[in-house]
Amino acid sequence: MSVKIIEIKKSVFESNNREADALRVALKEKGVFLLNVMSSPGSGKTTLLINTINRLKDEMRIGVMEADIDSAVDAEKVAKTGVRTIQLHTGGMCHLDAEMTMQGLDNLGLDDLDLIILENVGNLVCPAEFDTGASKSMMLLSVPEGDDKPLKYPLMFETVSALVISKIDCLPYFEFDIEAVKARAKKLNPSIEIFEVSAKTGQGMEEWTSWLRQEVSYCKSKK
Amino acid sequence: MSVKIIEIKKSVFESNNREADALRVALKEKGVFLLNVMSSPGSGKTTLLINTINRLKDEMRIGVMEADIDSAVDAEKVAKTGVRTIQLHTGGMCHLDAEMTMQGLDNLGLDDLDLIILENVGNLVCPAEFDTGASKSMMLLSVPEGDDKPLKYPLMFETVSALVISKIDCLPYFEFDIEAVKARAKKLNPSIEIFEVSAKTGQGMEEWTSWLRQEVSYCKSKK
Repeated sequence: MSVKIIEIKKSVFESNNREADALRVALKEKGVFLLNVMSSPGSGKTTLLINTINRLKDEMRIGVMEADIDSAVDAEKVAKTGVRTIQLHTGGMCHLDAEMTMQGLDNLGLDDLDLIILENVGNLVCPAEFDTGASKSMMLLSVPEGDDKPLKYPLMFETVSALVISKIDCLPYFEFDIEAVKARAKKLNPSIEIFEVSAKTGQGMEEWTSWLRQEVSYCKSKK
Repeated sequence: MSVKIIEIKKSVFESNNREADALRVALKEKGVFLLNVMSSPGSGKTTLLINTINRLKDEMRIGVMEADIDSAVDAEKVAKTGVRTIQLHTGGMCHLDAEMTMQGLDNLGLDDLDLIILENVGNLVCPAEFDTGASKSMMLLSVPEGDDKPLKYPLMFETVSALVISKIDCLPYFEFDIEAVKARAKKLNPSIEIFEVSAKTGQGMEEWTSWLRQEVSYCKSKK
């Protein structure tokens, strides 16, 4: 399946935070909830998104922006769900900022959408440093990555509203202390919402999508 | 175990490539082989290194520099092997460049070492863009990360001399086409050496450490 590929340009704005706040206000006025999804490469962002979209697409209008250095493999997978999907190429950049996100939104269009999902570049460092202007951000941490990640990449855990611990069907095969991860994440970010999910078996998907559904309808009600 | 933690400063040099080449020449003159190890967070770099060090430490003098945004968990684990180990804190930086590597080497000392291993920040994007001045670079790709990574992060695969496909004991639990990964990596980098390794079961460790042993002794012979 062929999807539209957008080559986004490096931001020229001086203050990313100002741009990000302006984008957040614009989204709020339109009643569109933009979710910024971050994680390491290979933590299962795309698989989680496809499962999430399939659970929500009949009750809300969803658009997806997939950001990558190269290729369109993720956008092609997501497009099969039937929701509007574009691929953003970052020109080698390791993250998205607010202006790059706006370039994506200009191409996706947002007037007829309730939820837009931005899959950021797979990277636990740089994306945490740049506010995309999203309504909220979430991160995935997959079980095979190990339970020490909050210690090594604290800013990411401090930045997000929600943490999805993914691939929990793999828990028997890895030494992964899930209680330690939760305690470490809560220490960095006491208000973080934590979900334990396996997109493969469906475990925890209901709790996660309920949270997202609630966020989208709250955003709509405040329009 | 407490290890020395070095707060490294951002590089002030104009040309990283020139600094990197100069460092490589200096290492060659001393007959020290510096291996730069890169991968996503959680691909098993530290576990592979510990296993590698335990196989080689009786036949050569090894030093290790662990780079991270925060914490000293990796350096503390590696220090238990008994080899000289320091932790580099990058001050939030997502990669190391040649000057930062030199700051590390100044602290580690290299006059009485044959092999120095630099564990770069866990990140598939930025570390590929900055030459550290290492003799050679290698990367890990762990099975749980998925077989599409060469498509999404091509520069990393183009940059390294060796690819270790790690956690291959997990192959039964994941959809991971190892032949496709090898073909994709070879297409990007025809001379790349590929090893299939499980640090957990020991599978493939002999081939991988043989390659490294050969590189270290070749470096010594050319001093």
